[in-house]
Amino acid sequence: MFARIDHIGVAVEDLDAAIALYEQTYAMELVHRETVQAQGVEAVLLDIGENHVELLAPLSPETPVGKFLAKRGPGIHHVAYQTDDIELTLRQLRSTGTRLIDEQPRVGIRDSRVAFLHPSASGGVLTEIVQPSKEH
Amino acid sequence: MFARIDHIGVAVEDLDAAIALYEQTYAMELVHRETVQAQGVEAVLLDIGENHVELLAPLSPETPVGKFLAKRGPGIHHVAYQTDDIELTLRQLRSTGTRLIDEQPRVGIRDSRVAFLHPSASGGVLTEIVQPSKEH
Repeated sequence: MFARIDHIGVAVEDLDAAIALYEQTYAMELVHRETVQAQGVEAVLLDIGENHVELLAPLSPETPVGKFLAKRGPGIHHVAYQTDDIELTLRQLRSTGTRLIDEQPRVGIRDSRVAFLHPSASGGVLTEIVQPSKEH
Repeated sequence: MFARIDHIGVAVEDLDAAIALYEQTYAMELVHRETVQAQGVEAVLLDIGENHVELLAPLSPETPVGKFLAKRGPGIHHVAYQTDDIELTLRQLRSTGTRLIDEQPRVGIRDSRVAFLHPSASGGVLTEIVQPSKEH
C-alpha cells in the first residue's frame, strides 16, 4: 500500500531558524519552499535520502498548524506515507472503514496529491497519504 | 550525515490494537518485537520500504513513554535518522554545539546503536540517531 515514509511534518515558530538547524546541523538539503494557502502554512522540504522533512510555519494563529503550536509547541505535526496511486489507496482505506478527513485527494506541496486520515482512525497520529508529482 | 529516516516512534496504549491497525489497515509487515528494558518499552518494528514504524508501549506509567502518554496521549513520540557511523555523526553534532541526551551510543532495538539528541537542540522534536546492526 505504501512505498516509504514520504516525510515527517514539523511545526515550527521560526521558519528561517528551523531551516538553519536542518541545513547546517543536520546537513539536509533544502529542495523546495512554498506558501500552501489551502493549508495555511509556509512550508519547506528538505531531502533525507528518499524521504523528506517538511517544516511548517503557520500563516496565522487561526490555522491548524497555528493552533497546534499554541496547544503543544513546536514538534512533529504529522507523518506522510507515500503511494503511487492515491485513488486506489483511498479506496482500500475506505474498504476497511478508515475514517478520512479528505474523501478525495487535493493538491499538496510541490504539486503532490494528498489526503489526510482522521487521527481517531490512526491511533492519535495525524497521517497523510502522498502521491508525489511525476517530477519527484 | 543521515542516509534516510530510519523510523518514526509512535507511543501507543494498546500494543496489539496498534499492531492490528498497522498490519491490517496499512498493510505493513511486522518484522520484530522486543522488550527494551533500558527504554522501558515493549516495541515492535514494521517495515515500510526501507523505513520503519516503531510502536512503543510503556512497561509502566513511570517510564518516559508512559509519561508522554499521560501528558499528550497516543501519537508520534520521536523521529530517528539513520547513519552508518554513529560515532562520526555524534562527533559532527558535538562540533556544532548540539546538546545530546546520549554522549555515547547505546544499544537500541534489534541490536542497533542509538543516541538521542536533546529536544531543546532540535526544535522540540525528540530526535534519535540510529546505526542499524550489520544484519539490517
